[in-house]
Amino acid sequence: MIRAWAANEAAGAFELAEYDPGAMKSDDVEIAVESCGLCHSDMSLYEDEWGVTKFPFVGGHEVVGTISKVGDAVTTLKPGDKVGVGWFSRSCLTCNPCMGGDHNMCRSVEQIAVGRYGGFAEAVRVQASWANKLPEDLKPEDAGPLFCGGITVFNPLVQFGVRPTDKVGVIGIGGLGHLALQFLNAWGCEVTAFTSTGAKAEEAKQLGAHRVVNSRDDEALKAEAGRYDFILSTVASDLNWSLYLNALGPRGRLHTVGVPPKPIAAHAAQLLGNQRSISGSPLGSPATIRQMLDFCARHAISPKVERLPMSRIGEAFQKLKDGTPRYRIVLDNDF
Amino acid sequence: MIRAWAANEAAGAFELAEYDPGAMKSDDVEIAVESCGLCHSDMSLYEDEWGVTKFPFVGGHEVVGTISKVGDAVTTLKPGDKVGVGWFSRSCLTCNPCMGGDHNMCRSVEQIAVGRYGGFAEAVRVQASWANKLPEDLKPEDAGPLFCGGITVFNPLVQFGVRPTDKVGVIGIGGLGHLALQFLNAWGCEVTAFTSTGAKAEEAKQLGAHRVVNSRDDEALKAEAGRYDFILSTVASDLNWSLYLNALGPRGRLHTVGVPPKPIAAHAAQLLGNQRSISGSPLGSPATIRQMLDFCARHAISPKVERLPMSRIGEAFQKLKDGTPRYRIVLDNDF
Repeated sequence: MIRAWAANEAAGAFELAEYDPGAMKSDDVEIAVESCGLCHSDMSLYEDEWGVTKFPFVGGHEVVGTISKVGDAVTTLKPGDKVGVGWFSRSCLTCNPCMGGDHNMCRSVEQIAVGRYGGFAEAVRVQASWANKLPEDLKPEDAGPLFCGGITVFNPLVQFGVRPTDKVGVIGIGGLGHLALQFLNAWGCEVTAFTSTGAKAEEAKQLGAHRVVNSRDDEALKAEAGRYDFILSTVASDLNWSLYLNALGPRGRLHTVGVPPKPIAAHAAQLLGNQRSISGSPLGSPATIRQMLDFCARHAISPKVERLPMSRIGEAFQKLKDGTPRYRIVLDNDF
Repeated sequence: MIRAWAANEAAGAFELAEYDPGAMKSDDVEIAVESCGLCHSDMSLYEDEWGVTKFPFVGGHEVVGTISKVGDAVTTLKPGDKVGVGWFSRSCLTCNPCMGGDHNMCRSVEQIAVGRYGGFAEAVRVQASWANKLPEDLKPEDAGPLFCGGITVFNPLVQFGVRPTDKVGVIGIGGLGHLALQFLNAWGCEVTAFTSTGAKAEEAKQLGAHRVVNSRDDEALKAEAGRYDFILSTVASDLNWSLYLNALGPRGRLHTVGVPPKPIAAHAAQLLGNQRSISGSPLGSPATIRQMLDFCARHAISPKVERLPMSRIGEAFQKLKDGTPRYRIVLDNDF
């Protein structure tokens, strides 16, 4: 049996629960959880905002831990290995996207906390392919948020070939954005932080921004016209997208990893003249996750976290709901 | 003096006019016009739809002719050379886009029929860089529409790396779309034509489409879900873009070269999961135009045109306004 923190109904109290994970699949590994980050999408699942949550609900998709058991067919990991796991826990390995390296777009990809139990638990099982070994130079206790918040913003830099000579903007300096600033600074880019929180300006610079622009000041945004090669939006709110499109230079791209309530509308004339693109992307494949881990170890990049013991999970969810942690909450296993 | 067909007011009658082109610039060439295609954007300028037209207005931006004079500094072209010119007639050659090969995105690019006189004339002058020599195997009499309609749909295939293994859709089978079908068939792709005109289905297949889908049949579009790598829209009307986005597979791109009246709206959730993009592009650079001309010569690609003598220019504009020529009108110089 595996002990876990479960909610029995949408937004309900967390209770200690146990579940039977069944027989090990031959390609599974079992991970003794050491810590697990808390992400806004845990909140969305917890409140059943997307209508896909199964109860009892055990969230948690920023897992760091140690391999405790491996299935018969697993040859790449062994007990004692330090690994991390994110939103995805299994893919078919045979469909065209999987065969093409895009396991994150597998047609039957499994999500760790949708229809199964996630990382707010003493242990969790996932397909070995999705358990990513931590480089020795990476501090495991802070690594959790890399596996969702981190890879979400690292993936588009790889997918769309962001170059060290690019001028890049990051909209929203929170759990995702504070990692994007660190990545892009180490990537060699000119980095601008767009934030509506004046108090974050200094922190944004410490995290790697060379410049800070008020994301809700239309005049300031107008002055940025034509400047950017790439603007990465991490926010889930509706902005004046037309001004951000206008801030893109030739071949510029406005890329979102957040899901604002309303559609992003662009007049074709704004796209045509400067050959601009708008796009989105999901979390990355295992190959890209591993590139990110190496990159983080080489450049001493790590999430800024607030820690709580996992038994205070209810308090942690409330803290996330009430405000903005600086910048990510991590729950330490205290089972 | 150069004789030309001019309108003295928006949508006014065409009259024979003369203008003094002044001294030859050192990097200019003068082209004796043989024929010039008629494009929907000539109509937009003629009716001053965009508010940028200068009167008297001499349109025409799909010029084919023979070099008659060259400026002092021109070393790459000589009298007698057969050339073609499109929407752009001069660029600075020094700004970053020009220096990077993106002369079509030059910060001070000159448009041949905006604030100067275009190709519905006996002659026209342009910067030598923008006069593109026709390959010997290309029939000059039909080549005109390649320089606007053609390059507009060829350019995105180059810019966004469309691959011969891609499944590609073309929305709208008109002046642009009928060339896109030919390009994409020769490019090696699986080609689907989206058209609302049932009568065009058979012609679309003759032009290179392997499949035809009714562009206004929502059920038919739903059945295309996840199929396409690239969808190229050539239409200037508002469609149900959500269905077209849904028709894109992983890494798919919806690209428009037409300008519909309303913005194209996409919910971020439709972009994220499959890493989809929406984009637009302008006409191509001289380097891309020359790639297109070689490609057309090698694959015997040519516009399907209806011909009229240039003196019947008023009738030609009326014909374009009344209906859809199959697929492009070309005016032959009869000065």
